[in-house]
Order: sequence, then C-alpha cells, then structure tokens
Amino acid sequence: MKIAIYQCKGTPKNVEKNLKDLQRVANSAAEQGAKLIIFPELFLTGYNIGDAAIDLAEPSDGQAAQSASNIARETNIALLYGYPERSGKSVYIAAILIDRNGQTLANYRKTHLYGSYENRSFEPGNSLVVAELEGLKIGILICYDIEFPEAVRALVFAGADFIAVPSALTKPYCRIAETVVPTRAYESQVFVSYVNRCGSEGNLTYCGNSCIIGPDGEDIVRAGSAEGIFIADVDSTAIAASRRDNPILTDLRAELYTSRVKKGLP
Amino acid sequence: MKIAIYQCKGTPKNVEKNLKDLQRVANSAAEQGAKLIIFPELFLTGYNIGDAAIDLAEPSDGQAAQSASNIARETNIALLYGYPERSGKSVYIAAILIDRNGQTLANYRKTHLYGSYENRSFEPGNSLVVAELEGLKIGILICYDIEFPEAVRALVFAGADFIAVPSALTKPYCRIAETVVPTRAYESQVFVSYVNRCGSEGNLTYCGNSCIIGPDGEDIVRAGSAEGIFIADVDSTAIAASRRDNPILTDLRAELYTSRVKKGLP
Repeated sequence: MKIAIYQCKGTPKNVEKNLKDLQRVANSAAEQGAKLIIFPELFLTGYNIGDAAIDLAEPSDGQAAQSASNIARETNIALLYGYPERSGKSVYIAAILIDRNGQTLANYRKTHLYGSYENRSFEPGNSLVVAELEGLKIGILICYDIEFPEAVRALVFAGADFIAVPSALTKPYCRIAETVVPTRAYESQVFVSYVNRCGSEGNLTYCGNSCIIGPDGEDIVRAGSAEGIFIADVDSTAIAASRRDNPILTDLRAELYTSRVKKGLP
Repeated sequence: MKIAIYQCKGTPKNVEKNLKDLQRVANSAAEQGAKLIIFPELFLTGYNIGDAAIDLAEPSDGQAAQSASNIARETNIALLYGYPERSGKSVYIAAILIDRNGQTLANYRKTHLYGSYENRSFEPGNSLVVAELEGLKIGILICYDIEFPEAVRALVFAGADFIAVPSALTKPYCRIAETVVPTRAYESQVFVSYVNRCGSEGNLTYCGNSCIIGPDGEDIVRAGSAEGIFIADVDSTAIAASRRDNPILTDLRAELYTSRVKKGLP
C-alpha cells in the first residue's frame, strides 16, 4: 500500500486555509497512487498557538471533521490528521483516521502530554487504539508518545503493523527523529511513520525530518527541512521476514523485567 | 568518576594472552586516572570460537578470575570483563565486576541469547543485577540484551546510574551501536557504555563503534573501528538534571500499556 506523509509549516489559527491545504495535498497524494496520507500534530489549527487551540477545538464529528470526510470521499484517499478535540469540558490533542468513504475509523487522544503548555491546556487520553484500513492495522501515537517504547510494544502486541505518529518536534530535540524513531521501528519490528512540522511557528523551530521506517529500522523515505509530500510503499508482508531475521519480540522475557533485580552476585 | 572502555580484537582461544592484555590495559587506564575499565563480551576467550568457549569456560571464582583479581589489586582499578562461566553442567555468557581490592562485586549471566550459536552452546541467565562501585550503581547487560528496552528500564527502576554492556556486535548490524544504544540512554535517562570488539574473528567482522553515552542521549566518547582505550568522565549527578529536562521516567503511564488497546473509536 502506498502511504503518503505531508511535512509542512501549516497556517496558524486558520482552519479554513489548512482544510484547503488538506484537500490540495490529499488530491496530489491520491493522484500519485497513495491510499493514505498522514499530516502533523494539530495540523488543522497550528500547534504553537496558545489558547487559540482551545478556542478552535471541535468534536470528532464537528464541522472540520465533516469537511475532511467530504475531502476523503472526493479525493478517494484515507486521511489521518491532528486536531484539537473538544469533548464536553475537555480538550484533547487528537488524531483522526478517516477512510476514503468518509467514514471515521479511529480517533486517538494523545496519552503522554509534553511540557507545561500541553499539560496546562489539554487533557490526556486514556487508551491506545489500533484500526484496520484495507487490511493494514494502524496504531496511532502523537509526538511525545513515541518516546515510550512501552506504547509501541502495546500497539504491536495488539496487532499493529504500522504506527502513524503526527508530530510537532522542535529544535534542539531533532535527535528523536533521527535515533529514537528508527529504534522504535527496529525494536518492535514494525513500520513507523513520523510526520513532523517544519519551519518556524512563533518562538518554535521544527525539525522536519519526517520519515517512514521499515521493521528492520531502515528509512524507506526521509524528508529534510522543507515542505513536501513523501510517499513510500508499505508492504506489511515484510514484517514477517524481518521478524525471522530479528526475533526480538519472541526473544522477549516478560517475567524477567518484573522480577526483582539482584544485587551483585547470583 | 573516570571510566575507561577497551575496544579490541582480542586473541581467540588464548586466555593467557588475553589476561596479559587485561593487565597492560588496566595499568594504562589506571595511570590515566580511570577507576573502572570495561572489556568486550567473552573477552577472556574470544567470541567466535565455537565449542572452544565451552572447553575454556571457568567458574566465576576460577583460575582466570583469580588472576584478574590480582591484576585489579596490583593496578588499583576495577575491572568488568566478559568470559564463559561454567557452573555445574551449564555454561553461561557472563560478565564479572571486580573492584580494585580484588573483590568480586557482581557476576551477570546474559539473559537474552542471540541466534543459533549462542542458543546451542550456552544457558541463559535468569536475573538482572545492579552492583555499587564507589557510589556508582552499575547495571550489567551483554550485547543482545541492550536491544530490549524493558531490560534497561528494569535496571534503572532498581537504581542503576550506569549500564555497562560488553558486546560482540557484527556487521551488518552496526546500526545497533549508532541508534539503539543512544536511544536506550535517552529513553531511560541513564549512562550507557557499549564496549564492542573490532576487526575480524573467523567469518565475523565486528562493528567497533564502542561508546559511553550520557543520560541526554549524547555521546561522551565514541570509538571508530580501531583498537584503543577510551575514557570518559561519568558524573552521576548529571542524571538528575537530565531527568528534569526530559521527564520520560515520571511521565510513564504503566497502567496504559497493560490495559487493552481499543479498536478505532473511543
């Protein structure tokens, strides 16, 4: 399955403009044969926009989601994008997966909030999700979530073939995209797609460096610092071959890590 | 505390020669102010030597360990080296930590055996260990063990400041030393020292690339492909500052990873 990622600056606080970009980019990716296109964290509104993210938050079936659903149907491609989700009095950093029929397949709420801005403004989600898109089992994480190997393990044990990670990674933490993300793919023998912002937004400078990585830990595609659509062919049958080569998941010894660690001598 | 690592080819099947190297290198590291020197996996005997590793295996208080104990006392430096350990009918891939008084502080048996050679020839150990050396809490892992983030987490939760990893990493898996090892340090906010072989041994070519990495995931020292002693100053008080900057360990949500992963919609 061809999967596209869109690394971009976005337009802060302008949902209408970002939906237009969503349409343009979805259309281009579909024309290039992609079945799914993934956008960065809080793509619809911008990330570094303070309380405006709260003001612009919408339900997972709100007006913006309905527009996105129409775009998915019109352009015939599945969409996965980040947005601030309002649910009752709470606002979440969420990512929604909509199939090419305009149907919502998954809505994930970021479970690990990063730093003071996120913790002050948003509620954390309380569950991980895996959804199936045309036979591909997709787990969703958002930015900081990927730093926790346990989160990827949980998704892989639940059957995920492909971890989609809308992100807003900033300097000086670019090492995350370069070393941590490939390690997650390798150690859990799973495809990982890290879809980051680029350029600057207020006082933040994003790392770009978006990528799709195979279960052997090797880059299939990797962006630099510029905006663009990047496409990779994701063949989930490669997972079985890679796991034969690197049987980390079957060599795991769960009982060992929870038992007491001894001091010094056996 | 200054800690030295010794990246080397070693002399296959020649324990006497390797003990002479141990003495020479320990002496040089001590003269440079190091308090501990770490050697690669199965340093005493060679790694890729088939059944000879079984024939040359000794108890953790055998003749070679007694020689090493004398060397530690004479050179006034703690030693951590890999060797094949015989215990009853079993042989383990072990690593022993001996302090500068010649006292054995820890003996660790590799818990994750890699591939057909190791699984055919050796028994796996069944516990992790942390030992204290002059105030520094040292966890020990051996080569393949470090690919499991759970193993490092268990040692860190048991108080480890510094993970010592005698290794025998071969091409084409050099990516482990370059991306996985730094990720382990970063994600668990702990010092990690990966001490590898270099050069060739039979049909294996080792990666070199030994390193000591800080809790922020940055290299403090990194070898290339050549033999040598590499020394880094390890200040365990840096851990607290790094954990304030990157509070991954306190942001962990253990309950999340063991709960069921939901399908699609919340």
